[in-house]
Amino acid sequence: MSEPELARIGHVALETADLDASLAFFVDAVGFEEVERQDGTVYLRAVDEFDHHSVSLTEAERAGVDHIGWQTRNPEDLEAYAEMLETEEGLDVTWVDADEEAGQGEAIRFSTPHGHPFEFYHEMEKPDPPAERRSKLKNKTYSRTTTNAIAPRRIDHVQIWDADAPGCAEWLQEALDFKVQEYYDREDGSRWGTFVSANGNKIEAAVIDDEAEQPPGLHHIAYKVDSADDLFDAADAMNERGVPTDGIGQHSISRGKFLYTRDEESGHRIEFNAGGYLVFDPNWEPIAWQEGDLEDRQWIGQIESTDRVQY
Amino acid sequence: MSEPELARIGHVALETADLDASLAFFVDAVGFEEVERQDGTVYLRAVDEFDHHSVSLTEAERAGVDHIGWQTRNPEDLEAYAEMLETEEGLDVTWVDADEEAGQGEAIRFSTPHGHPFEFYHEMEKPDPPAERRSKLKNKTYSRTTTNAIAPRRIDHVQIWDADAPGCAEWLQEALDFKVQEYYDREDGSRWGTFVSANGNKIEAAVIDDEAEQPPGLHHIAYKVDSADDLFDAADAMNERGVPTDGIGQHSISRGKFLYTRDEESGHRIEFNAGGYLVFDPNWEPIAWQEGDLEDRQWIGQIESTDRVQY
Amino acid sequence: MSEPELARIGHVALETADLDASLAFFVDAVGFEEVERQDGTVYLRAVDEFDHHSVSLTEAERAGVDHIGWQTRNPEDLEAYAEMLETEEGLDVTWVDADEEAGQGEAIRFSTPHGHPFEFYHEMEKPDPPAERRSKLKNKTYSRTTTNAIAPRRIDHVQIWDADAPGCAEWLQEALDFKVQEYYDREDGSRWGTFVSANGNKIEAAVIDDEAEQPPGLHHIAYKVDSADDLFDAADAMNERGVPTDGIGQHSISRGKFLYTRDEESGHRIEFNAGGYLVFDPNWEPIAWQEGDLEDRQWIGQIESTDRVQY
Amino acid sequence: MSEPELARIGHVALETADLDASLAFFVDAVGFEEVERQDGTVYLRAVDEFDHHSVSLTEAERAGVDHIGWQTRNPEDLEAYAEMLETEEGLDVTWVDADEEAGQGEAIRFSTPHGHPFEFYHEMEKPDPPAERRSKLKNKTYSRTTTNAIAPRRIDHVQIWDADAPGCAEWLQEALDFKVQEYYDREDGSRWGTFVSANGNKIEAAVIDDEAEQPPGLHHIAYKVDSADDLFDAADAMNERGVPTDGIGQHSISRGKFLYTRDEESGHRIEFNAGGYLVFDPNWEPIAWQEGDLEDRQWIGQIESTDRVQY
Repeated sequence: MSEPELARIGHVALETADLDASLAFFVDAVGFEEVERQDGTVYLRAVDEFDHHSVSLTEAERAGVDHIGWQTRNPEDLEAYAEMLETEEGLDVTWVDADEEAGQGEAIRFSTPHGHPFEFYHEMEKPDPPAERRSKLKNKTYSRTTTNAIAPRRIDHVQIWDADAPGCAEWLQEALDFKVQEYYDREDGSRWGTFVSANGNKIEAAVIDDEAEQPPGLHHIAYKVDSADDLFDAADAMNERGVPTDGIGQHSISRGKFLYTRDEESGHRIEFNAGGYLVFDPNWEPIAWQEGDLEDRQWIGQIESTDRVQY
Repeated sequence: MSEPELARIGHVALETADLDASLAFFVDAVGFEEVERQDGTVYLRAVDEFDHHSVSLTEAERAGVDHIGWQTRNPEDLEAYAEMLETEEGLDVTWVDADEEAGQGEAIRFSTPHGHPFEFYHEMEKPDPPAERRSKLKNKTYSRTTTNAIAPRRIDHVQIWDADAPGCAEWLQEALDFKVQEYYDREDGSRWGTFVSANGNKIEAAVIDDEAEQPPGLHHIAYKVDSADDLFDAADAMNERGVPTDGIGQHSISRGKFLYTRDEESGHRIEFNAGGYLVFDPNWEPIAWQEGDLEDRQWIGQIESTDRVQY
Repeated sequence: MSEPELARIGHVALETADLDASLAFFVDAVGFEEVERQDGTVYLRAVDEFDHHSVSLTEAERAGVDHIGWQTRNPEDLEAYAEMLETEEGLDVTWVDADEEAGQGEAIRFSTPHGHPFEFYHEMEKPDPPAERRSKLKNKTYSRTTTNAIAPRRIDHVQIWDADAPGCAEWLQEALDFKVQEYYDREDGSRWGTFVSANGNKIEAAVIDDEAEQPPGLHHIAYKVDSADDLFDAADAMNERGVPTDGIGQHSISRGKFLYTRDEESGHRIEFNAGGYLVFDPNWEPIAWQEGDLEDRQWIGQIESTDRVQY
Repeated sequence: MSEPELARIGHVALETADLDASLAFFVDAVGFEEVERQDGTVYLRAVDEFDHHSVSLTEAERAGVDHIGWQTRNPEDLEAYAEMLETEEGLDVTWVDADEEAGQGEAIRFSTPHGHPFEFYHEMEKPDPPAERRSKLKNKTYSRTTTNAIAPRRIDHVQIWDADAPGCAEWLQEALDFKVQEYYDREDGSRWGTFVSANGNKIEAAVIDDEAEQPPGLHHIAYKVDSADDLFDAADAMNERGVPTDGIGQHSISRGKFLYTRDEESGHRIEFNAGGYLVFDPNWEPIAWQEGDLEDRQWIGQIESTDRVQY
């Protein structure tokens, strides 16, 4: 039996203390599409996604994150991962029945040694949009004619914070074979951030050192848009709706241009992300940044907030 | 009394044989805002316009154009123009009462010697959008959060066709003091097109020679959008809705980038126009193009249709 | 004789303590075109400008501004302005011979009552670029094939600071017939900024209250670029060259999107400006902002510096 | 030993009858970077590429294509492919020493059963640009400050023509495990085009049926740019230089926006390509187009030429 393999970041299951308020942010303001409601959970996807959901919202006592979902390359990878995680890593693995999470096949859930709640799954339905929303282009999900103009296109990455970020990233590499695309070291040699990928094609998780040493959590989920113009359009839409933003600009790491916006109810943050680069090179060597290489981690602009939601 | 003066192209009063079908094009597909209905006429404006309307639609036996409206610089210019047109040009001038055309003050109407139906007016109301559509930016009319994403911004120019286009353009210059911004001559020295402006800041009317020698008519009304990306977005929206387009590209004359789309019911054509240039230079000399200066009148791309609507 | 009239902002004559260092910023980094050197002054224009220059650089003991140049609508306006300024305003007016400033006809210079150094002129040569740089498009000056990719297109406005900004703006309106396009009042009713225009089509001078009560000066000259993408490209180019930037974002007033950059030698600041709106409406009423209308004067992003160069 | 695997399209080795004329197109007009000259071959890469080359030019008796290069996932894949191709497919495989093609490790070359000249390689040097051209961003190759503004970013795909395109595509799938991302069938059920990928993430080869039944050949190499605006900028640059273009628009298949341009000397065509979509989904099912699904294979605009270069 060959090694199990992850194919990509798939979705994030979010919790909020006020489902309607959070839906007003995710659907009305940001432009996610509602695909299904089941057992009090609302499943959403971005307009360029075929899969059933890339984010879900469930009402809970406080805002949190139930799990970050990763899709495996093959169906049999689930079994292999479950065994490996239990045997070699000594972790508790829970099996989730097909369709317990709507649209999804069987899955396993576990907490990483650093406390990040992960889910692995392979099967995911690809429901058609309602007929009047379906694009005439067969390779496109939703027509944009009646869609929120600034709607993000597809999930790109998550940023997670950890008081032991280097250890967390190391475990992702060693146990789960995540590839490092870039990393950033402080002047004293300590690692501030490691930018890793399940498939090696693009950064899918930024693992950031939490200097405040809080419990681990999620800083944001990033979705791709098409251009820098889209970031200004998104800022405009957020301002018109009175939804908070946390800065516009461009990261040096990843070269992604950004606009951050935030659900005031839950604190969950969405990054609109444009540009960046892809890796198809099988011999890619991680990009090594040292503090002082550049004046600032942002190539232009500022991120105005470091709050994040604990799991 | 000083010479009367025109300030700008203001609006076009269109006729259609099927009002609902044409509204489906102008409002649902293109993204004009309905401001008012009065006496069977629907008054529309673009999302970046403060004035009451820049296009109106009236049901009639056949598609046509009731008038092309030009705003005068001063209120007293109406009286002066009326006298000049009757006395010096021997034209019939009709006075229109305030609010006969909704939102508009008193106006005069006349047919140019070449048969183009013109209206001059000065006063135009600037109604606020409905509260939920009003932008928070005081210098912007509509918030774009609930607006058709590809909605054009503001009226730019009209293109009119005439079997004696050079004579028509000459009269606009001599009688009405239009300024010539560019012109294009064929190899045999005959003039194909003259691109004129009431205010001298931008092309407001393209006067094109009709080689088929048909009665005069309107080829299109052009509205500004923000970028070349917007043209592709507009093409996408038209295709998704099954609305015909007539080409994407860039004109050499005016340097405007274009996407043409057309109301299948009436044949009225809207150009989405991006880029181009402005003239603030008081000493501007007309740009003189000769056939052969460039391979094609388009810098890139093609216009696929020369149909136009007779007045 | 009719009232003299201004047609537009034309150019700014800058001084720098190190001409070569400042040229490295203006020409190599920002992408201005050098048109001519005469008597130690280097005359520059933007790539979409036909006129001889829109900015000039002269070496002097310290960085400063010799004058802000405004073009009159007619040649005879110079004489009329000179007489009016001397007789009615009691100002000293100096005549400048044709070609004393390269490429320019006769001009008058004076200091406004608040100490802003103004020049009025009418004639300006329109030299062709070198043949290998001339665009094939007759309505375009420079081909962009060998031009700095981020080169700004054409002069848009100046921002001037004054310890009595309201008085300064009032004089511009009353003596010189500047039109107010927008203004911004503080909670206590005092005016923070007045945004005025010579031609009434676009903001050409922002007159800002200097809370530090320093002598009057120039905060920046703004040049138009084509899109928000261009702002990110300009930021990228500045960072690659180690040239300082002062923020990216969008103003609420004027709706202009901005990137600020600065000549480290002289402190002269250039704004790359995209978007905004134009006024062709003869009945435009000034947009009145009150502190508190919006959280911030910026719609998104920040300006990071308030330094400016004294005249 | 596991199955050998291809990682991606890597480069195309082109031949031209006039090297200098073709370099004027590839380097001066399009903006490729010259990396090295060796044995009469000039090695070029795009500004966002780290690898030694993605296209090379060699002078030959006539324009042609020496090979299309694909990079293997692992070094040992070369040996495995060589054995498989000889034993199972009965093809002649030629080994190429390291550095015979500059910057490249050992490689194998063979002609597919349909006559397409392929090369497989694994090692490729990643030379730094000259210091003054190196970006300050460690994850970027060239600073764009002195680069041709319209320079394409990175290789995307090739389009190859074949009188038996369906058979050619089938062999790529069966022998080399290419994945089908989209395909297009005519009304009579015959296949017009198959759009395949070595890595499954994006279309890397379009295999098009040649109705003229000519020997197989290369229609174009496509390179990514960042936005639709870039396509208009590229069209502008080509026109200013007198370099031919073959249309601007958007494909329905792949959703890629395009501008085609062509080396008049050799006939080799470069597509500037913006937009499109990526596949990270392990369960992707090919998109099946039928003639009649859409009016035209282009969503907007036209491709004006079907000429292509025989190998």
